[in-house]
Amino acid sequence: MSNSNKNALTEFNSYRAKMNEKILSSDNLVLKRLFNLDAQTYAEGALNVKTKEMLGLVASLVLRCDDCVKYHLEKCFEQGTSTAELFEVLAVANIVGGTIVIPHTRRAVEFWEVLNS
Amino acid sequence: MSNSNKNALTEFNSYRAKMNEKILSSDNLVLKRLFNLDAQTYAEGALNVKTKEMLGLVASLVLRCDDCVKYHLEKCFEQGTSTAELFEVLAVANIVGGTIVIPHTRRAVEFWEVLNS
Amino acid sequence: MSNSNKNALTEFNSYRAKMNEKILSSDNLVLKRLFNLDAQTYAEGALNVKTKEMLGLVASLVLRCDDCVKYHLEKCFEQGTSTAELFEVLAVANIVGGTIVIPHTRRAVEFWEVLNS
Amino acid sequence: MSNSNKNALTEFNSYRAKMNEKILSSDNLVLKRLFNLDAQTYAEGALNVKTKEMLGLVASLVLRCDDCVKYHLEKCFEQGTSTAELFEVLAVANIVGGTIVIPHTRRAVEFWEVLNS
Amino acid sequence: MSNSNKNALTEFNSYRAKMNEKILSSDNLVLKRLFNLDAQTYAEGALNVKTKEMLGLVASLVLRCDDCVKYHLEKCFEQGTSTAELFEVLAVANIVGGTIVIPHTRRAVEFWEVLNS
Amino acid sequence: MSNSNKNALTEFNSYRAKMNEKILSSDNLVLKRLFNLDAQTYAEGALNVKTKEMLGLVASLVLRCDDCVKYHLEKCFEQGTSTAELFEVLAVANIVGGTIVIPHTRRAVEFWEVLNS
Repeated sequence: MSNSNKNALTEFNSYRAKMNEKILSSDNLVLKRLFNLDAQTYAEGALNVKTKEMLGLVASLVLRCDDCVKYHLEKCFEQGTSTAELFEVLAVANIVGGTIVIPHTRRAVEFWEVLNS
Repeated sequence: MSNSNKNALTEFNSYRAKMNEKILSSDNLVLKRLFNLDAQTYAEGALNVKTKEMLGLVASLVLRCDDCVKYHLEKCFEQGTSTAELFEVLAVANIVGGTIVIPHTRRAVEFWEVLNS
Repeated sequence: MSNSNKNALTEFNSYRAKMNEKILSSDNLVLKRLFNLDAQTYAEGALNVKTKEMLGLVASLVLRCDDCVKYHLEKCFEQGTSTAELFEVLAVANIVGGTIVIPHTRRAVEFWEVLNS
Repeated sequence: MSNSNKNALTEFNSYRAKMNEKILSSDNLVLKRLFNLDAQTYAEGALNVKTKEMLGLVASLVLRCDDCVKYHLEKCFEQGTSTAELFEVLAVANIVGGTIVIPHTRRAVEFWEVLNS
Repeated sequence: MSNSNKNALTEFNSYRAKMNEKILSSDNLVLKRLFNLDAQTYAEGALNVKTKEMLGLVASLVLRCDDCVKYHLEKCFEQGTSTAELFEVLAVANIVGGTIVIPHTRRAVEFWEVLNS
Repeated sequence: MSNSNKNALTEFNSYRAKMNEKILSSDNLVLKRLFNLDAQTYAEGALNVKTKEMLGLVASLVLRCDDCVKYHLEKCFEQGTSTAELFEVLAVANIVGGTIVIPHTRRAVEFWEVLNS
C-alpha cells in the first residue's frame, strides 16, 4: 500500500475510533448497547462472517452511507472477498437501488483499490 | 400449505405476473431491459444464487419494499435458506436500517410461515 | 369507465378530500400554508403544468409514495400526457430509483388503466 | 370509542403482539436485544416520556412508516399529548420531509381520531 | 471557543447565508414561501421552541442530512439543551433509523463539541 | 468561466470518467448494461431530452444525490434550460421532498452559477 493510501485508511479509521470512544464514554446506555449489538450482528452464526459482511455492505450501499460502505468493504476485504464477488454485490446494490447508487459505487471501487494496494 | 395460504401466495404471484406482462408489452425498451437485467443480477456467478437472493432480500428490507421482500423470500425459500439463516438476514436489516424495519420484519416472518406451511 | 373503476377512483379522491378538510380545519397555520404552497408549485410558470406534473410524478415514484403517484397520475392524465410519455417517466423513475420502484410502477400502470378506461 | 374503531385498534395491536412474540421466540439474540433496546429508548431520562414519544413520532413520520406512526400516536395519546401539540409535530414532519408525508399525515389524523373517540 | 472551531462555525453559517440569499433573490415564489414557512415551523406554539428544535434535529438525523443536523444542533444549543438531552435525541435517531445514522451521530457529536467549546 | 470554476467542473467530470472506466473494465455484465441503459433512458423519445433531464434532475434532488444532481444540471444546461425553469424544478423538489432538500438546493444553485459563468 502506498503511503498516501495508508494515510487515507488510517485517518478514516482513527476518526471513527476517536468519535466512537466519545459516544461510548457518554452516559447513554441505549447508544452503548446499540454499538455492542452492531458488533454481535456480524459474528459467525448460521451464516458465516463473510456473507454477513456482504449483507452489511449491500444494505449500506442501497442506503447510500459512504462511511458504512467503507467499514464493510474493510471487513469484506479481511474476510477474503474476491473482486469478482465484490462487483456482484455492487451489481445487486445498483439494480435494487438504482443509478443513484453509482456515485457511491465509484467511491467504493476507489476504496477497494486502496485496500488491495 | 393451507388453502388460504396457497391463495395468498397465488394472488401475489399472479398480480405480479399480470402487471409485468403489461409493462413488458409496452414499447418502452428501457423498462424491458431493466426487467431483463434484474433477472440476470441474481444468476449464479462468483456468488451463488442463494447468497445473491439474501443480498436482494436485505436490500429490499432496508429500503422497506414489502413486495420486493416477498419476492426475495420466495427465492430464498427455493434456494433452501434455513429459518436460522433467514433470521440473521432479518437481524442485519434491522440493525442497519433501524426499528422502522420492524413492521416489514413482521410481515416477512408471516410470509415465511406461509412459504413453509 | 366501468363502475368498479369509477368507484375506486371516487373512493381515493373522497378520502383525500375528507382528510384534507380535517387537516385544514385545524388551527395549524404551517400545514395550511404548506397545502396552499403545494397547489401553487404546479401552476403554469416558466414550465407548463404538464411538465410540472410529470416532475411531481417522477419525484413521487422514486420516493415511493403510492398516493402521491396516483394524485400526479390523475393530473398528468388531465393534462393530456400520452401513454408513451407516461412510460418514459416510469423509465426514468425505475432507472434512477432502481427495481424497488417496480411494485409502485405496477400499481401506477394499473391506475393509469383505470383513468383511461 | 365506537365498536368499529375499537376493533381497528385491537386488530392493529394484536397483530403486532402476535408477530412480535414469534420474532422473540426465535433464537435470534440480535433481534431480541434490539426489541429490548427499543423499549428502553423511550423510558424516562433527561427527557420525559412524552417528549421522547413525540421524537419517535416525528422520526417515524419523515421515514414514512405507518405502523410506527400508529404505535407512537398511541404512546403520545397515553402521555396526554394535546391535539394542538400533535399538529405541531405533524407540521415539523411535513416541512422537513415534504409533501410525500401528507398521505401519512392523513392516516395519522384518522388514527388520532380513533384514539380520541 | 478556539479560533479554528470559530472559523468552522462561521464558514458553515456564512455559506448557508450566502446561498439562501441567492435563492431568495430569485423570482421563485414557492421557494421563498417555503423558506418563510420553515422559519415559522419552529416558532413557539403549543410546543416550546426547544422541543420543536429537538423534533427538527431527530427528523434531520434519521433522514441523514448533515447540514440540517448542524443547523438544528445550533438551535438546540441556543435553547439550552443539555448534553444528556442531546444524547437521548441521538439515541432515538439511532434506534429508529439504525446504524446508518452512526456516521451522522459522530459528526453531530463533533459539532456539538465545537458549539460547547 | 473563471479558471477556478473551470477546474472544479473538470475535476468533477474527470473523476467520474476515470471511475466509470474502471467499473466498465471489470467483467461485471450487469453493471455494464445498467450504465448503458442509463444513457438510453435520457435519449429523445416521446419526451424530448430537455424534459427527461429535468425529470432526472428532480429525481436526483429528492433522493439527495449531489453527484447525480450535478450530472443532470450539466445536461439541463446543455439543453438550454433557463434559470427560471431550473428554479421551478428546484421548487418541485423542495415541496415534494421537504426542507432536507435545501442543502442540496444550495449546492445545485452554486453549481448552476459555475455552469453559467
